[in-house]
Amino acid sequence: MALVVQKFGGTSVGSIERIEQVAEKLIATRKAGHDVVVVVSAMSGETNRLIELAHAISEHPDPREYDVLVSTGEQVTIALLSMALHKRGCDAVSYTGSQVHILTDSAHTKARILDIDDSRLRRDLDNGRVVVVAGFQGRDEHGNITTLGRGGSDTTAVALAAALKADECQIFTDVDGVYTTDPRVVQTARRLDCITFEEMLEMASLGSKVLQIRAVEFAGKYNVRLRVLSSFEDGPGTLITFEEETMENPVISGIAFNRDEAKLTILGVPDQPGVAYQILGPIGEANIEVDMIIQNVGADDTTDFTFTVHRNDFDKALAILTRVSGELGAREVTADNAIVKISLVGVGMRSHAGIASTMFEALAKEGINIRMIATSEIKISVVVDEKYLELGVRALHDVFKLEQSPVV
Amino acid sequence: MALVVQKFGGTSVGSIERIEQVAEKLIATRKAGHDVVVVVSAMSGETNRLIELAHAISEHPDPREYDVLVSTGEQVTIALLSMALHKRGCDAVSYTGSQVHILTDSAHTKARILDIDDSRLRRDLDNGRVVVVAGFQGRDEHGNITTLGRGGSDTTAVALAAALKADECQIFTDVDGVYTTDPRVVQTARRLDCITFEEMLEMASLGSKVLQIRAVEFAGKYNVRLRVLSSFEDGPGTLITFEEETMENPVISGIAFNRDEAKLTILGVPDQPGVAYQILGPIGEANIEVDMIIQNVGADDTTDFTFTVHRNDFDKALAILTRVSGELGAREVTADNAIVKISLVGVGMRSHAGIASTMFEALAKEGINIRMIATSEIKISVVVDEKYLELGVRALHDVFKLEQSPVV
Repeated sequence: MALVVQKFGGTSVGSIERIEQVAEKLIATRKAGHDVVVVVSAMSGETNRLIELAHAISEHPDPREYDVLVSTGEQVTIALLSMALHKRGCDAVSYTGSQVHILTDSAHTKARILDIDDSRLRRDLDNGRVVVVAGFQGRDEHGNITTLGRGGSDTTAVALAAALKADECQIFTDVDGVYTTDPRVVQTARRLDCITFEEMLEMASLGSKVLQIRAVEFAGKYNVRLRVLSSFEDGPGTLITFEEETMENPVISGIAFNRDEAKLTILGVPDQPGVAYQILGPIGEANIEVDMIIQNVGADDTTDFTFTVHRNDFDKALAILTRVSGELGAREVTADNAIVKISLVGVGMRSHAGIASTMFEALAKEGINIRMIATSEIKISVVVDEKYLELGVRALHDVFKLEQSPVV
Repeated sequence: MALVVQKFGGTSVGSIERIEQVAEKLIATRKAGHDVVVVVSAMSGETNRLIELAHAISEHPDPREYDVLVSTGEQVTIALLSMALHKRGCDAVSYTGSQVHILTDSAHTKARILDIDDSRLRRDLDNGRVVVVAGFQGRDEHGNITTLGRGGSDTTAVALAAALKADECQIFTDVDGVYTTDPRVVQTARRLDCITFEEMLEMASLGSKVLQIRAVEFAGKYNVRLRVLSSFEDGPGTLITFEEETMENPVISGIAFNRDEAKLTILGVPDQPGVAYQILGPIGEANIEVDMIIQNVGADDTTDFTFTVHRNDFDKALAILTRVSGELGAREVTADNAIVKISLVGVGMRSHAGIASTMFEALAKEGINIRMIATSEIKISVVVDEKYLELGVRALHDVFKLEQSPVV
């Protein structure tokens, strides 16, 4: 008998019918002899409905009250799911984040979990109950309701799994696992049986939106065995592992990409200490997140400096950079918001040379010009013109034979 | 400076616009120099929406989970109202029933308040905050969410006023006070400046649905000064007083009526000890509430027994009575579900003779046949055919000159 934490997102509990289906799934897990703690999100659409109510009153609603408001979404789901379990003769009990003492800091709308008191949960599990917990929410030390920010239900599930030392934390979602790349772009994309935490972090932050980054980080930190499965189809999903656990790693696990990039370059900046800060300081102060950063030596004691931002921040970043350029006496500012980032991710890269050259060769064969390159231990990212996204991803998926299961 | 508890029901907070209006009202109270605790219901329609969700899953949803579900309705309102106050620069903080430690028993869906910890509220009030509390809900000793049953927000307001020793508990509603009778039936019906607790209890239980009975009882028990006012118009409303406070009481305060009555009679029951229990026991076991009960001596050592029930329970009660009649060897069962009850209410009755005969005479003059009579210290109720309801109420309103303010 194992203890599993199962998490179902908004789409999986988006209607009464789906909630009933989740109840059936939970009962099947119980019948297989496992103890279950289930974490649920708000029914899809509900959180947006609540946010619209808040914004009908105020453009900037008070964050504490915002949390009081939106946390009702999950509270509705836990009650309905518990009712559905009761109807089927399955003993179940629901808890809000406050009730189960998911203690967070007081950073309303983006709180972080500090501690979980698992005594109440253990007592219920010992009594054979399915425990239904509201995701995404907690309480601070003063008893104020807090929320973890969008997607925080994944984090709740992982945190509960860590606190309860669960055998596995299963994230049910509308995809049946993590793929080598987006199947909508590459038809031969293959579901991975497992992926390492590090790769998953790179995949998630690079735009494969299967799991919340914070949840993955949390799972890595607390050694939680995490699995992504489909709510709607049976299947083993993808297990997210610690590198040490896996046998031989494939060189490349997947190809992530991000359509929402924009690139800004300041050319001919006098090369002096502190110049990077002078350029990026004002960008950071404007709350613009910078992704890739590249600095190159230019001509005549000057330097060229390029960075990418989210496409939504492009206009704001360009205005700031133009101002900074004048202050620094730089030669020119260029910018391009029709670019994308494609990244090869794989822990096997560490021990395999020649990955980068294979990548660049494959792109060159297709006539794709590379605008920027950035590398880390387990990924290589390139920036290319937006129009080459699909072509580039497919070429790379082919050349690394990702449609085939790795031989282990 | 006074401390007032103000309660706004579902219609008063039924839209964003109305919530904003309530915020304005609260700020006016603050500007008048008063401290305010405000209790709100769910936005009108919201509780029904939640109940429909529950019933889409189960005809008999688990009561604990039902409370988890429906309590979200008020939680949404407290957050929105607090946001509306913040937007206007008014410091405010919201609390659920759990957060403010409204301790109840564990009778889910109809819990009773046992205790309130007012320390948190007092601290907020001392800091100049408007405190916004979710009505209708609390928590039991184990931290489970409970609800007080429909209309329980009035009870929350009164209980908070009692705990905080507030100067006044103001119930804002869609009527501007308590009337001598329903103005839709009698055009000359007059708003009462004050009414005693006892009269209010009789008026409420007899069908003048201005306030919840339990809230009025609670106010009486804890000496809370209670006032009913309109959410939509300015005005003094009706103050509900202890009899001792008021000067001379008018003989009759008002005329209540109840359209939803049905009458059942069992004739020729052998007159022996325990017969009332034999008749009413099975009715009570079927969860049917009995209102008036009359027993008369019949012919030949038999007795006739009549009682009234809510019209919705008529068929069920009739079936039970027919069965019981056979068991008891009674002569006959008769029944009528086209009857209504009209009641004169007034504490002055105690010291005034002749009220009953004036009443009966007025009804007789209109040719209205009285089917049943029941009296208590401060009320006289008659049952008449449904078709005479309006005629009867108007005749009584006229004969007791209720359209005129009493001379004190």
